[in-house]
Amino acid sequence: MSNWSLSQVAQHKSTDSCWVIIHNHVYDVTDFLKEHPGGPEIILKYAGQDATGVYDPIHPPDALQKNLPQSKHLGPIANDAAAQIEEANQNIRQTKDELRVVQARQKMPPLSRILSLADMQNVAKQVLSHKAFAYYSSASDDEITNQENARAFTRFFFKARVMRPVSQCDPSTTILGSFSSIPVFVSGAALAKLGHPDGEVNITRGCAQERIIQMVSSNASLSPNAIMEAADQSQTLFFQLYKHRNDEIAEKRVKEVEKLGYKAIFLTVDAIVAGNRERDIRSPWVLDEQEYGPVYHQPDEPKTPADANIFGTAGALIANDDRDMTWEKTIPWLRSVSKLPIVIKGIQCVEDAVLAAQAGVDGILLSNHGGRQLEYSLPPLEVLYAIRAEAPDVFNKLEVYIDGGIQRGTDVVKAVCLGARAVGLGRPFLYAQSAYGVEGVVKIIEILRREIITAMRLMGAASVHDLSPN
Amino acid sequence: MSNWSLSQVAQHKSTDSCWVIIHNHVYDVTDFLKEHPGGPEIILKYAGQDATGVYDPIHPPDALQKNLPQSKHLGPIANDAAAQIEEANQNIRQTKDELRVVQARQKMPPLSRILSLADMQNVAKQVLSHKAFAYYSSASDDEITNQENARAFTRFFFKARVMRPVSQCDPSTTILGSFSSIPVFVSGAALAKLGHPDGEVNITRGCAQERIIQMVSSNASLSPNAIMEAADQSQTLFFQLYKHRNDEIAEKRVKEVEKLGYKAIFLTVDAIVAGNRERDIRSPWVLDEQEYGPVYHQPDEPKTPADANIFGTAGALIANDDRDMTWEKTIPWLRSVSKLPIVIKGIQCVEDAVLAAQAGVDGILLSNHGGRQLEYSLPPLEVLYAIRAEAPDVFNKLEVYIDGGIQRGTDVVKAVCLGARAVGLGRPFLYAQSAYGVEGVVKIIEILRREIITAMRLMGAASVHDLSPN
Amino acid sequence: MSNWSLSQVAQHKSTDSCWVIIHNHVYDVTDFLKEHPGGPEIILKYAGQDATGVYDPIHPPDALQKNLPQSKHLGPIANDAAAQIEEANQNIRQTKDELRVVQARQKMPPLSRILSLADMQNVAKQVLSHKAFAYYSSASDDEITNQENARAFTRFFFKARVMRPVSQCDPSTTILGSFSSIPVFVSGAALAKLGHPDGEVNITRGCAQERIIQMVSSNASLSPNAIMEAADQSQTLFFQLYKHRNDEIAEKRVKEVEKLGYKAIFLTVDAIVAGNRERDIRSPWVLDEQEYGPVYHQPDEPKTPADANIFGTAGALIANDDRDMTWEKTIPWLRSVSKLPIVIKGIQCVEDAVLAAQAGVDGILLSNHGGRQLEYSLPPLEVLYAIRAEAPDVFNKLEVYIDGGIQRGTDVVKAVCLGARAVGLGRPFLYAQSAYGVEGVVKIIEILRREIITAMRLMGAASVHDLSPN
Amino acid sequence: MSNWSLSQVAQHKSTDSCWVIIHNHVYDVTDFLKEHPGGPEIILKYAGQDATGVYDPIHPPDALQKNLPQSKHLGPIANDAAAQIEEANQNIRQTKDELRVVQARQKMPPLSRILSLADMQNVAKQVLSHKAFAYYSSASDDEITNQENARAFTRFFFKARVMRPVSQCDPSTTILGSFSSIPVFVSGAALAKLGHPDGEVNITRGCAQERIIQMVSSNASLSPNAIMEAADQSQTLFFQLYKHRNDEIAEKRVKEVEKLGYKAIFLTVDAIVAGNRERDIRSPWVLDEQEYGPVYHQPDEPKTPADANIFGTAGALIANDDRDMTWEKTIPWLRSVSKLPIVIKGIQCVEDAVLAAQAGVDGILLSNHGGRQLEYSLPPLEVLYAIRAEAPDVFNKLEVYIDGGIQRGTDVVKAVCLGARAVGLGRPFLYAQSAYGVEGVVKIIEILRREIITAMRLMGAASVHDLSPN
Repeated sequence: MSNWSLSQVAQHKSTDSCWVIIHNHVYDVTDFLKEHPGGPEIILKYAGQDATGVYDPIHPPDALQKNLPQSKHLGPIANDAAAQIEEANQNIRQTKDELRVVQARQKMPPLSRILSLADMQNVAKQVLSHKAFAYYSSASDDEITNQENARAFTRFFFKARVMRPVSQCDPSTTILGSFSSIPVFVSGAALAKLGHPDGEVNITRGCAQERIIQMVSSNASLSPNAIMEAADQSQTLFFQLYKHRNDEIAEKRVKEVEKLGYKAIFLTVDAIVAGNRERDIRSPWVLDEQEYGPVYHQPDEPKTPADANIFGTAGALIANDDRDMTWEKTIPWLRSVSKLPIVIKGIQCVEDAVLAAQAGVDGILLSNHGGRQLEYSLPPLEVLYAIRAEAPDVFNKLEVYIDGGIQRGTDVVKAVCLGARAVGLGRPFLYAQSAYGVEGVVKIIEILRREIITAMRLMGAASVHDLSPN
Repeated sequence: MSNWSLSQVAQHKSTDSCWVIIHNHVYDVTDFLKEHPGGPEIILKYAGQDATGVYDPIHPPDALQKNLPQSKHLGPIANDAAAQIEEANQNIRQTKDELRVVQARQKMPPLSRILSLADMQNVAKQVLSHKAFAYYSSASDDEITNQENARAFTRFFFKARVMRPVSQCDPSTTILGSFSSIPVFVSGAALAKLGHPDGEVNITRGCAQERIIQMVSSNASLSPNAIMEAADQSQTLFFQLYKHRNDEIAEKRVKEVEKLGYKAIFLTVDAIVAGNRERDIRSPWVLDEQEYGPVYHQPDEPKTPADANIFGTAGALIANDDRDMTWEKTIPWLRSVSKLPIVIKGIQCVEDAVLAAQAGVDGILLSNHGGRQLEYSLPPLEVLYAIRAEAPDVFNKLEVYIDGGIQRGTDVVKAVCLGARAVGLGRPFLYAQSAYGVEGVVKIIEILRREIITAMRLMGAASVHDLSPN
Repeated sequence: MSNWSLSQVAQHKSTDSCWVIIHNHVYDVTDFLKEHPGGPEIILKYAGQDATGVYDPIHPPDALQKNLPQSKHLGPIANDAAAQIEEANQNIRQTKDELRVVQARQKMPPLSRILSLADMQNVAKQVLSHKAFAYYSSASDDEITNQENARAFTRFFFKARVMRPVSQCDPSTTILGSFSSIPVFVSGAALAKLGHPDGEVNITRGCAQERIIQMVSSNASLSPNAIMEAADQSQTLFFQLYKHRNDEIAEKRVKEVEKLGYKAIFLTVDAIVAGNRERDIRSPWVLDEQEYGPVYHQPDEPKTPADANIFGTAGALIANDDRDMTWEKTIPWLRSVSKLPIVIKGIQCVEDAVLAAQAGVDGILLSNHGGRQLEYSLPPLEVLYAIRAEAPDVFNKLEVYIDGGIQRGTDVVKAVCLGARAVGLGRPFLYAQSAYGVEGVVKIIEILRREIITAMRLMGAASVHDLSPN
Repeated sequence: MSNWSLSQVAQHKSTDSCWVIIHNHVYDVTDFLKEHPGGPEIILKYAGQDATGVYDPIHPPDALQKNLPQSKHLGPIANDAAAQIEEANQNIRQTKDELRVVQARQKMPPLSRILSLADMQNVAKQVLSHKAFAYYSSASDDEITNQENARAFTRFFFKARVMRPVSQCDPSTTILGSFSSIPVFVSGAALAKLGHPDGEVNITRGCAQERIIQMVSSNASLSPNAIMEAADQSQTLFFQLYKHRNDEIAEKRVKEVEKLGYKAIFLTVDAIVAGNRERDIRSPWVLDEQEYGPVYHQPDEPKTPADANIFGTAGALIANDDRDMTWEKTIPWLRSVSKLPIVIKGIQCVEDAVLAAQAGVDGILLSNHGGRQLEYSLPPLEVLYAIRAEAPDVFNKLEVYIDGGIQRGTDVVKAVCLGARAVGLGRPFLYAQSAYGVEGVVKIIEILRREIITAMRLMGAASVHDLSPN
C-alpha cells in the first residue's frame, strides 16, 4: 500500500466519504460521523485535511484506536505530504489570542510569589487560551451556584480554642483506607491538555510528591492507562465514572480501570445532561470577533441547525452517558461488575444521602459539579450542614466528601469540622498545571497544607480528630 | 363632496373646531377632545395637521371607527395634499434617536447568538426607540418592586434528586384545559407596535409555532379581531380585560371577544389607576434635550396645567377604567355576560386569593403588574409561597399563575414547584418581537424550553407532575 | 449724636471694646461676647467692621433687639460710611462657590419637570451654597443613622387589596384637632434663609395654599412673629421649642408663641447637645481649599483653641439649651406656663413612649433628628413598629408621629398603616424653598399628595381609616 | 585593641564567620545565626557590612546586649571607617517609596483638621512607608475577619433615653483598679518605630497627658525599660507577654517587667503561630517591582528554600513563642513567678471565657488579634454578646475587655453597654504616632472622649454605670 498524498485525501471531504489526517496517518471516519459525541459538523469542517491540531487537546491518544475499526485506519501519508503539513502549520498566522498567550507565558511571576489559590487562578487566567479558560472556569446560567458554593463558606465562623498544645500538629487522614497527607483530594477535572501539553499527568506527579489522592475523570485528555503509568508505585488513584448508556461498554470500562489498579469508582450522577455554560458556548464567537470583527444579523439567513453545539464542550463529552440510572438498578449492576469501593459523586440533598446510605455505597461526594450543572442547586457545604442536622447517622454508614467553592485552608477545615472526611478541589489543580506543570500542582498542595496547619493550630487542634462542629 | 386641501384643514386648529388628518382622511374631533383618554392637549398639538405618525403606533387601526360617529368622518384629502404630506414626511430630519435606532438595527447580532432572555433584552435596548424602551421597561417610583420580583427567585434553591430516569422528559401542561407545550404563557403586554410595525401578531404567530398560549391585552396596538385573524386554527388565545367604568361598554367588549373565539377572560384588577412610571414620563423630555438642549426654569412661567400627562402612557390608556370593582358586584356581572372562564389578574396577597376562591373564579394570576403599579407590593413568588403555607386549599379550588421577574427556565421550574400551574412573561416577548419579529418570539420560547428541560432533568423530574415543593 | 465714621468703629475691635455694624447701625457687643451662643471668636473676627453679610442668614432680624440692651445700640453710621460699605461689598470678588451657585441658578430645570422629592434634592444640591447644603444635608458621624432611617422603609412591603371601590379617595386627616389635607406636616427645620432670602415664610405660604401644618423651629432664621404674620388667617402653625436652660427665659418664649397663635408646643428632647456633623464642620475648610489651596501641617503651630467650633453650626445654635430636663420636672413646668397641647419631639424607644403616655402629654414625635444627633439611634419606623408590638396602648393615649427618612408617598402610607397619625418632613421643604421658593414648597406637597393617593387606591384604601397594619 | 577597618570586617561574611556593624561597633554573630528569630538569611545578607539601617526600626536598642555574650562584642570601628559608612549612607539613592513619603510628609493636613480616627488613618496611609503601612494594616488571608470585627458594631443600635439630666457627664472608669479617663486603653501594638523614630514612647507620653493606660507589647521596638522611663510618675502601664517556649527565659522577662513597675500581665494566647498576612509578605516584592520592574518566572530556577520568610514580619517576631500553653500548666506557673494581675488576651469563644474564669485570672481580653491571626474567628463583639447571653456569671468573676474594629466613640459605648469594662485600640495609635508623634496620640484620645461624651449624653447616660444592655 503506497502512502497517501494530500490531494488524494482532499477528495474525501463529504458525508459520503470523509477522511482526516491525524499525526500523519489517514483515517476514514465516514461511518463514525453520526456517532461522534461532538456531532458531525466539527469533523466535516476538517474533512479531507489534517486535523491533528484540534484533535489532540481534547481526545486521549488512544481514542481512535478504540472507536475506529482497524479497517478504517488507512495508513500513513507520504513523506512529502507530511513535510507540506509541517510547513503549512509553521506558516499559519497565530491568532490574536495565541499571541496574547505567548506573551503572557513570558511574563509569569516566579512560583515563589504565588501565595494563594487566588494568585494561581490569576496567573492561569493570563496564560490560558480564551477557550481553555472559558471551559475551565465557566458555570451554568448566571453562575450563581458557582458563587454560592464559595459564599456558603463565608457564613461559617470558627470558635477558636486557646491554651491547647499544638506545637505538634498533624493534618493527615485516610480516604477509603488510603493515606492522604491532608484532608484534600483532586476532584475529577477533564481536558487538562487544554492548559498544558502533558495534561493530567502533571497532577498525578504532583500528588505523588505530596502524597494526596487524584480522582481521574472518564473525560480526561489522557487514557486511564497513560495516567496510571505516570503514577508512583504506591500512589492511590480513584476513577470518576461517567457511565455509558450501554451497560456492556460501561462494564468494559469499569473492569479496565479496576485492572489498571484504580482504587475506587466515583459514579457521576450530577451530569447526566450538560449544564448551560454560556461562557463556554460563547467562547468560539468571542475569538471570531476578536479576529474578524462582529457578525451581524441577516434577516434572511437560514435558521441555525437544531441547536447544534448549544451545549458546548460539555455537551459533546457526555452525549452518550446514561440518563436513566436508578438506585435499584445501577448500584447492584456496578457491584456485580467490580469489587472496588463505590462512591456516588453528585449528591445534592439530605434525602439522597440517606438513600445512598441505604444502598450501601462506601461514600458520597456532595457536589453540584462546581456549579456547572443545575443552577440554584444547594451549595454542598449547606447540604453537609443539613445532613448533620437531619440525618447524622449517614456519617456512620459511609464516608462523606464535598467539593465546590474551596479556596482556602480554612474552607477545608470548616468542611472537616462539619463532618466531611475530605474535600475535593478541581479547578485549582487545572489552573496550576496549566501555568507551572507539576511544580504548580505541588505548590497548590503546599499552600493548602500551610493554611490548614495554621488554622488548626490557631483553633487549638493538633489533629483532624480534634475538628468537630464546635 | 370635494376632497380637502391642506389649507382648509389648517383653519380648524382650536378647541372650537379641531380637525386632524389620519391616513389621508380628515376627521372632526372637536367634540371628542374632552373624551380622549390621553387628554385634549396632545390632539390640539396636531390640530389642523396630519397626525398619522403619532396616531399609528398607539391606537388600534379601528379606534377612530369605534370612537367617532360617522358624521365626523369628513372624507379624504385631495391628491396633491396627500403628495405634500408625503413629501413633508420625507423631508423631516430624523431625530438623533431615530438615527441611533437605524444604525443599531444594522448591527444586531445573528439570532443564533442569542442564548438567554437577558441577551434578547440587551439587543432590544439597542434597537428600540428611547420612548418605546422607556415604556416597556419602566416601573413605578424607584423600580424597587420590579427588582424584587426577580430577586425573590434568587432566594429559592433546588433540592436536586439524582438516580432517576429522565431520558424521557416532558414539560407540557394544560392551562384552563388548553394544551401548552411548556408551563409558560404570554402575559398581556400593550403597545407592541412601538417596537415593531406588525405589533402583537408577531407574538401570536410565534406562539402558534411553539404551541403556547397568548393573553391579549385590551390595550394592544391591534384590535382583538386583527390578532385573532392572525392566529392559527387550533391556537388558544386569552383576553386581558381592562373593564370600562361603563358596564354596557364593558359588556359589549366581553361579548365581542367571546364571539371572536378567545378562551378566557383575565380581569385586570392591579391597574385601576396608573402607577408612577417616572422613566416613561420623562422620556419625551430626554428626547427633547437630546435634540435641542436643556430647558431652564423661568421664574414667571405659567403653572403646569393640572398635572397634565403626569401619568405618562399608562395613564392615558386606562383613564376610563372601572375603579370601583368589588367581589360582590363585578364577578356576578361578568358571569352574567359571558360563559368564559374567569381569571383575576393582579392578586397580591393571601387574603385576596382566598376571596377569589370563595368567589368561584377559575383562576388567579398573582401579579403586581411587573412592578409597574404599587411600589413595594409583595413579589408574586412570595405571595405564592405564602398561599402554600397559609391557605393551601386555594390550589384545589382554582388554577394559580404568576408573572413578574422571570428570566430563566429555573425561575419557571421554581414557580411550578411551589404550586403555580404556569407562569406568564410579558416584557421578554415585547423585546423579542421588537428586535426579530416572529423569529424572536420563537427563539424566546425555544430558550425557555431548553432551560426548563435541562433543569427538570438535573432535578430528576420527568414531567411537571414530578415538580413539588421538594 | 453724630453718625459714626468707619474709622471710629474700627478702633473697637478687641475683647475690651467690641463694636460691629449691622445694616448701617453700630452696636456695642463687648458685654455680649461671652453670651453669644456661637462663641466670641466669630464676633471678634468682624469686630470694628460691617458684619451684615454673615449676620443676616442665621439670625432672626429682631435678634439684636432682644438680646442687646437699648443702651448698646449706638446709632447709625454716617452716609459716606454706608456708601463705602456698599462699594466695598460690590467690589468683593465672588468666591468660586458663589460663582458656581449663580451659574447653577440659571440652569435650574422648570418646576414642571420635578417628579419626585429626589429630583428636588438634586436641584437643591446644585443651587445651594456648599455651606448651606452641608448644613441641611449633613448628619452625625458616618451618617449611618440618616441612611438607616430611609432604609427602614424599604423593609416593609404592602399587602395590596384589590376589588375595592376607590374612585373616591380622601387622604386628609387631623393633627391635634387641626385639619391637614394629607397626613404630612413640616417638621421644624432651621436656617431656611441659608437657602433663600425669604426663609421660612416660603414654607408658611406653601402650607397655606396646600392646607398642611408647619412646625416652626426655635432656631428659624425668622422670628416666630414674622412667620405668623406671613400666615393665613385660618392656617395652623406649631412651635418647636428648644428649651433654654433658664426657666424664666424659656417661659417667656412659650408665652410669646402661645400669644402669637401657635397651636401646639413640640418640646425637643433629642438635641440637648450637638451631634457630630463632620460635613458641616468641614464645610468652611472645603471652601478655603477651593479658594486658596490646601493648608499643610506646621509642626510648631499653636494647638487649636479648645475645640472651638468643633460642633459646627448646630453647636452654636443650642449652646444654651437645657440639658437636664426630666419627666418629673419639665412636663409639669410646661403645663404650668401654657395651655397648649404638648408633643415630645425625639422619642427613640418604646420605654420612653410609655413614659410620655404616663406623663400625659398630647403627642410624641418619634425622631432621631434626621440622623443628625446620636449615630446608631434606632430608625423611627422601627420604633413605631416596636410600640405597636410591645405597647399598643400608647396609641390610645396620645397621637404618634414620626419623621426621618421619608422620600415617597408610599413611605407616608407605610407609617400611617403602622399607626402614625402623620409624618413630618424637614429637609425636602428646605431644599424646595431654596430652589423655587413658595412654588417649590407647593410642588413638594402636590407630589406627596399624588403619590399618597395613588398608593392608597392601589392598596384598596379610600381613606386614612382604611390604612391598618395589614 | 585597635579599631576595625571596613576591609577587616568585610572578610567575615559567611556562615563560618559572620560579623556585622551596628552603630559603628562590630559584633560576631556567627553562633547567633541559627537562633535569630527572623532566620539566618536576613543577617547573612548584611554579613561583613554595616546593618544599622535595617536593625534599628525592628529591634529594641538593648537587643544585642541581651542576646549576644560580651565576648562577641568586638569593639568599635576606626574613625575613618565610620566616616566612610556615613558618606555611603548619604549617597544611597532614595527609593521611589522613600521619596513619596518625604513629599507626603510635607503635605500633611494640620492636626486641627483631623476629626475622626478614619481621618487619621488616611493621613497615616499617605505618610507611612509601604512596608510599615502593610505591616500595620495587614490581616490574615482575605482580611474578612478584620472587616467583620468592625461590621459587628454596625449591627447594634442604641435605645436612646431622653429627659434625663446629663449636663454633668463623666466617662471615666477603672481598669484592674487603675484610673482611666475614658473606658479605652492602648492595646499592644508592635514595631512603632517603623512609623516614627521615637516609637512607642510617643504613645506613652500621649497616654500620660490624657490619663489612659498603655499595654506594652513584648515585641515593641523599644525595651520595656525604655518605655517605662518615658512614663510619668503616676502613669499605669500593662505588659503584653508573648511567652517564650523556655520557661526560664519567660520567667526572667516577667520578673523584669514586674520590677520595672508594670501593673499587669496580658498573656497573649491568640498568636502562638503567625497568621497568613499576605499584604505584609508581599510588601518587599511590591517595593522591588516599583524600583526595578516585575520579576518573571524562570522554568529552571531553584526551588524556594523551605518557605523562608513566608510568615512575614510577624513570623519572625514569634518564632520562639510557646505553642503548648495550657490552662493547667501555664496559669499556675505565671502565678508562681509574679504577683501581678493576669489577663488572658485572645479569648475567642464563650467556652474559653468560662475556663478563664474557672482558672481564676483577673481579666480576659476578647480579641482575635485584630483579624491578623485566624481568619473567620468570631468578631469579639459577637463573643461579648454571646457571653452575656450564655454565661453572664463570667462578668462577676473577672473584668472583660475587647479589642478589634473600634473606630468611633459609639463603638466604645456599645461595648461598654454589653458588659465590657474597657476597649482596646491598637492600629489607630500606631497611625497617630506615625503621622504626628505625641500630639497625634493625644488627638486620638481627645476625639474618642468627645465622641463618647456626646453619645452618652444623647443616650441619657451621665456615667459609665448608666450604660447597660438597654
